[in-house]
Amino acid sequence: MSLKDLFTPQDTVFFNLFEEQAEIAREASGQLIGIFEDYTNVEAKYRALKDVEHKGDAATHRAFDELNRTFITPLEPEEISRLVSSMDNVVDFIDEGARLLLTYDIKQPDHFMLDFAKCIHQAAHEIQIGVGCLRTLKEPEVIKGCCIEINRLENVADELLTAALKNLFKSTDPIEIIKFKDIYEHFEAAADACEEVANVLSAILIRHS
Amino acid sequence: MSLKDLFTPQDTVFFNLFEEQAEIAREASGQLIGIFEDYTNVEAKYRALKDVEHKGDAATHRAFDELNRTFITPLEPEEISRLVSSMDNVVDFIDEGARLLLTYDIKQPDHFMLDFAKCIHQAAHEIQIGVGCLRTLKEPEVIKGCCIEINRLENVADELLTAALKNLFKSTDPIEIIKFKDIYEHFEAAADACEEVANVLSAILIRHS
Amino acid sequence: MSLKDLFTPQDTVFFNLFEEQAEIAREASGQLIGIFEDYTNVEAKYRALKDVEHKGDAATHRAFDELNRTFITPLEPEEISRLVSSMDNVVDFIDEGARLLLTYDIKQPDHFMLDFAKCIHQAAHEIQIGVGCLRTLKEPEVIKGCCIEINRLENVADELLTAALKNLFKSTDPIEIIKFKDIYEHFEAAADACEEVANVLSAILIRHS
Repeated sequence: MSLKDLFTPQDTVFFNLFEEQAEIAREASGQLIGIFEDYTNVEAKYRALKDVEHKGDAATHRAFDELNRTFITPLEPEEISRLVSSMDNVVDFIDEGARLLLTYDIKQPDHFMLDFAKCIHQAAHEIQIGVGCLRTLKEPEVIKGCCIEINRLENVADELLTAALKNLFKSTDPIEIIKFKDIYEHFEAAADACEEVANVLSAILIRHS
Repeated sequence: MSLKDLFTPQDTVFFNLFEEQAEIAREASGQLIGIFEDYTNVEAKYRALKDVEHKGDAATHRAFDELNRTFITPLEPEEISRLVSSMDNVVDFIDEGARLLLTYDIKQPDHFMLDFAKCIHQAAHEIQIGVGCLRTLKEPEVIKGCCIEINRLENVADELLTAALKNLFKSTDPIEIIKFKDIYEHFEAAADACEEVANVLSAILIRHS
Repeated sequence: MSLKDLFTPQDTVFFNLFEEQAEIAREASGQLIGIFEDYTNVEAKYRALKDVEHKGDAATHRAFDELNRTFITPLEPEEISRLVSSMDNVVDFIDEGARLLLTYDIKQPDHFMLDFAKCIHQAAHEIQIGVGCLRTLKEPEVIKGCCIEINRLENVADELLTAALKNLFKSTDPIEIIKFKDIYEHFEAAADACEEVANVLSAILIRHS
């Protein structure tokens, strides 16, 4: 018996919300690339990103409300809670990192920031594929592949951070170092949050297959 | 049937401990205001704050001991665990932030620190009201109002951090920047911990109404 | 009836994995001491530490796979999950802190770093003793003693951080301050992760005795 046979129409609400969150994570990370690929009108671009982050917050709240008012959920409540929280964290770290560009009045970002954005965006793309398979769980090998790829991308982000910091500390300007380090660390945290999403997807896969 | 009808005399122990923790969070945040409103005798004031933090630790441990030894709890074990941990975190971040004033030998705090303290204190006040309603759950709209207010205050803390950092980086003294940034971030984390308390209160409200 | 009477042969898998993780945490913290006691060939020593961290990752993944595919587990799934995650975190923070020595090209570590390493190693030793008692739970007072000692060591790490920062900020070199502060904070986080292991051990003890 597959999971699908057990689903009720109400379960659709959960899968819709997961997919909405995944779409928002992909969208926010795409906007982050947009900021770094053409570093102009950053304030307006950040406001657009913030709008997406607000949509993500709303989806997160709706998912938790559903979770708390539903007795029989399509996945373990703990799994739903971790999935929703971790996707929310991805968007929050993207938002906070981008906001620091304005707070610190960064005139010129470096290529590491664009590399982080691309790495997070790829991971968000994999999240979207993996989350899209939850509804039927018919393609476990697809979810598995997404998780492997997200884990690989988290390692890429780790190495990016090391490379970015190594490069940064060639500077003799401590204030610049403080600013850039803070921004890098937010993006690395976004990649960590993607890995947590992958961990939940793996757990769901094993438990329900 | 309301939750109250289901409570056993032993349940009182949990609600007493929650209220004790909430009272301690309010007390600690009040002491933090006291430190910044009259920045004298900071060491003595910090020792008094540390005493309160120790009381909070003791209450936290008692709550976890009760939780682990009780089979039928008035709320879900997961809810109790998150509520207790998040209130403990509020006090821990207040304590750690205040300790940095001494560690970094801060001669003169700025008004942002007092603003953070007031913001955390307001959130702790709302926590105390909301937690005080858990025993009967007769006034769900009061808990709901507290949660909305705590979420608003967390946004205020976020904006405070942005404003404080913007102002801080006008300085040309990197060592001062490192110190103040670290302190601000601890207070912002205390406000985040308050928001986590509100998230648990919301979840309890939805599940039990 | 003791827990032991309830164990199935398959349960052995979990206890073996817990003990493997504890052994890895002890090994990694021992390697950290080795780095600071003789600060030569740091790159080679770090590669050896990284190998141990990879073994830890593998054990962590095997533990989660077992957990997700096993219906009846010897401890609560939540307890297993927290135990496995927190031991993994101990090793991750040791690894990340050590990696920063290379990233920041630290020519000469200070005695605080060695003190942190010794503190973490002692805590990992206690973890190994405590985790080794889980299989039979015949010696609750031994586990209790380990938890008390780990909590004491976490306080030592807190005080070490305060002392190390106080000393560090005597420097007038902000870039040195940023580097050392980051490394200290990773080691303090490793000690916090040890405390979380102790919290789980305490919870297991209370629930199953």
